[in-house]
Amino acid sequence: LSPGDTAAAWPADAFVERLRQEGSSRYHDRHPFNLRMHAGELTQGELRRWVENRFYYQTRIPIKDALILSKSDDPAFRRAWIRRVGDHDGTHDGEGGLYEWLLLAEAVGLDPERVRSCDRVLPAVRYACDAYVDLVRDRTLVEAVASSLTEHFAPDIMRTRIAAWEKHYVPRGFVDDASLAYFRSRVPRATRDAQEALTFVTARATTRALQQACIRALVDKCRILWALLDAVAEASG
Amino acid sequence: LSPGDTAAAWPADAFVERLRQEGSSRYHDRHPFNLRMHAGELTQGELRRWVENRFYYQTRIPIKDALILSKSDDPAFRRAWIRRVGDHDGTHDGEGGLYEWLLLAEAVGLDPERVRSCDRVLPAVRYACDAYVDLVRDRTLVEAVASSLTEHFAPDIMRTRIAAWEKHYVPRGFVDDASLAYFRSRVPRATRDAQEALTFVTARATTRALQQACIRALVDKCRILWALLDAVAEASG
Repeated sequence: LSPGDTAAAWPADAFVERLRQEGSSRYHDRHPFNLRMHAGELTQGELRRWVENRFYYQTRIPIKDALILSKSDDPAFRRAWIRRVGDHDGTHDGEGGLYEWLLLAEAVGLDPERVRSCDRVLPAVRYACDAYVDLVRDRTLVEAVASSLTEHFAPDIMRTRIAAWEKHYVPRGFVDDASLAYFRSRVPRATRDAQEALTFVTARATTRALQQACIRALVDKCRILWALLDAVAEASG
Repeated sequence: LSPGDTAAAWPADAFVERLRQEGSSRYHDRHPFNLRMHAGELTQGELRRWVENRFYYQTRIPIKDALILSKSDDPAFRRAWIRRVGDHDGTHDGEGGLYEWLLLAEAVGLDPERVRSCDRVLPAVRYACDAYVDLVRDRTLVEAVASSLTEHFAPDIMRTRIAAWEKHYVPRGFVDDASLAYFRSRVPRATRDAQEALTFVTARATTRALQQACIRALVDKCRILWALLDAVAEASG
């Protein structure tokens, strides 16, 4: 028994506040590489390296969402969650978040087929992204859903990113405005997805031990996003 | 190395014929309980027991299909396969294969909420269905897809079942004709799904060893369906 096993569950609002605090203090918007990106300080090579490596993370999203689907016995939950797989895969070729990311890759001057192959992804980026899939596979449904709560912070980072790229990188010709479509589409979707996940987590994490497990899952997810930027920053040094 | 590792791959048509032979000789349409069902020999209690226990198998289908989704790196594959999850879950409450099965349960005189709870499912039925999910989780993508090739035999068993139930069980008031909707919907869907899976398996199983692994997966799946009927028949004895 860990100390949390015998403590009373936190009230829902206190639990949500803890999730918010633990998440926001570790979210990758505070990472030095992200701060440099949003301050307009990245070179064209650094911007390309980030786009190419982050694509591998994007490819893991529908895989981890399919694993979350497989953990639920509830058709209503699956009907809601399955939309996330479609958001990234689209309903036909030339649609969906993965396709939009490849358009972004092309716009920053990368060969989209080379990016799609993932053959230049940094090993440490690959390990971090694979660790996210492993986390979702190995933990319970409520923990796996809790790990997705980084989405709660995504609309803000996306809005900041769109403004920063428009200000710093579009004028320098590193990218064109139309290619920021993926970031734009994530603002409403992440808002909706985070609310849905938060409702689920607060309803299901009904003991202190479960609440703590959910916080751990969110913290571990934040570390994964952070490690991805560590690896990209290190390779750019 | 098993003997198959050094043998040449079978030509596609020979491989398909082996899959067909190994599958058809073990498919559960030959099971004594299924033969009794289609000959009109089941009592009302036996028919209900089959409907209630088979529901647990139905609940595992979207779970194993989500696991198959999670094993693929290819958005095009996932876009095609994800339709199977929707076939069972529907897009809203009161739609989809699981809902249709509960309508069938109600039509044969069962409490659909009790059936939904799965609390009277026979232990051996549960083990067999869980073994199917484990098989899909533990094996490679091509083997998991090969295990779904029992769908190739489903249209025939469904057509025979619809005719048999209309002849034997509708007139005795065990069930009404409208409640056979699930069986009817499976005829075109299983035809389409089996063709899609067969195309994938023949394209991907490019060595004798992979072809043999696919045949093993199909044989193991047939044994699972057979074990389900063994358990229902035993409980009915």
